[in-house]
Amino acid sequence: MTIKSVQDQIFKNILSLREGETHDKNRFFFVEGKKQIEEIPIDWNIKQIFVSEKYENDVTGIKNVVTFSERLFKKLASTKSPQGIMAVVEKKHYDIKEILKNSGVLIVLESIQDPGNLGTIIRSADAFAAKAVFISKGSVDVYLDKTIRATMGSIFHLPVINNIDTEETLAMLKEENITIFAATLNGTHYLSDCTIPKKSAFIIGNEAHGLNRKIESLSDLLVKIHMPGNSQSLNVAVAASIIMYEISKK
Amino acid sequence: MTIKSVQDQIFKNILSLREGETHDKNRFFFVEGKKQIEEIPIDWNIKQIFVSEKYENDVTGIKNVVTFSERLFKKLASTKSPQGIMAVVEKKHYDIKEILKNSGVLIVLESIQDPGNLGTIIRSADAFAAKAVFISKGSVDVYLDKTIRATMGSIFHLPVINNIDTEETLAMLKEENITIFAATLNGTHYLSDCTIPKKSAFIIGNEAHGLNRKIESLSDLLVKIHMPGNSQSLNVAVAASIIMYEISKK
Repeated sequence: MTIKSVQDQIFKNILSLREGETHDKNRFFFVEGKKQIEEIPIDWNIKQIFVSEKYENDVTGIKNVVTFSERLFKKLASTKSPQGIMAVVEKKHYDIKEILKNSGVLIVLESIQDPGNLGTIIRSADAFAAKAVFISKGSVDVYLDKTIRATMGSIFHLPVINNIDTEETLAMLKEENITIFAATLNGTHYLSDCTIPKKSAFIIGNEAHGLNRKIESLSDLLVKIHMPGNSQSLNVAVAASIIMYEISKK
Repeated sequence: MTIKSVQDQIFKNILSLREGETHDKNRFFFVEGKKQIEEIPIDWNIKQIFVSEKYENDVTGIKNVVTFSERLFKKLASTKSPQGIMAVVEKKHYDIKEILKNSGVLIVLESIQDPGNLGTIIRSADAFAAKAVFISKGSVDVYLDKTIRATMGSIFHLPVINNIDTEETLAMLKEENITIFAATLNGTHYLSDCTIPKKSAFIIGNEAHGLNRKIESLSDLLVKIHMPGNSQSLNVAVAASIIMYEISKK
């Protein structure tokens, strides 16, 4: 049966989730498109899968799929030409203390503004085996469709903890004897010359302004990437990825 | 004097340049916003600078600035909230044979589709001192405002040659004894294990499909980036930048 009325209760429920989506307190987020949905691991809770009428016959083997008319489906999709399938997925909560106890490299992102950059960093963190990605308050929402898409499924592969207070998090890192590196153009050491302890965190700043002085002063070492060319700046996702690449080789 | 009529000849001329902009035969391209315009080096030919009425008083020391009404300016700008100043700039032509004769690392991009990725790669090429960037036919236009913006001024710092035929270019590279590396998930060698000759070129493929077999078979060595994590793929601008970073250290 195809749901066609905006008065339908299932439609209303999903729409209210969608509209509340950017609130961090929301328990759920939306995953759009077949490719992204196929990436969702078995231990994640999919609350609902729904399709547009045209897409209905392409879905087989999934129970309890709700079908919406094209018009209703478009009201729920974030893109103008939606792919015809979406899922409402419960956000994962991770035990931060548990993460900090284990060795490995943490990435801390401060005020990243572009969803493409944020998603790309999470994708690289997955490729270079970072332990977790922490995202500060004031960053772009990691659960935006654009961010999710840019992660290419990596959002499901490693702990991503958003809405953190950076200074509080740095204090927790220090308590766990995690060495804090700040990536900054003011770096006093080239990353490639550094010894990286097993328990390390790298803080990476905002696209336009980098890190503020306070955060730099709370770090153990200010590091930079060696750039022999004209320009002394990199896209933030590129900088973060090069850092993770360099560390993964050590 | 502020130009307010769409019938004005100066307006018409600029509009026709703008509308023809994506044609590769167009001699000119548009640079939007104060920051980008300030990056234009002295040896580039700026044909015209124009501002919106509101912006007029912010421009000092530049001769022959044309002022348009807000309405006309918006017709010429690529963004909904333009910054109030634009320049019509002549494209640079580079002597490809001269570039190939000198040593250094060349980047060849095959069918890159996203303007942000393309611009980011040019920005990294500038930071890591690549000699030039070649862009294949079928790639996104390097002169789009989105691409130019993502280069952060680097478009003006190193030769960027677009609309090349990849196979013809590879033949030219071979004639000049330039070693051709193809970056691919099918790589037989890790980049970090390779010796990079002084005259080298790196071919990097499309976001979704990478390089085709033909291009791979025309290359001297297939290389890949070591990724110890779950995901075995990177954003294309990240992959290209890591390659340039790794080479710049050798």
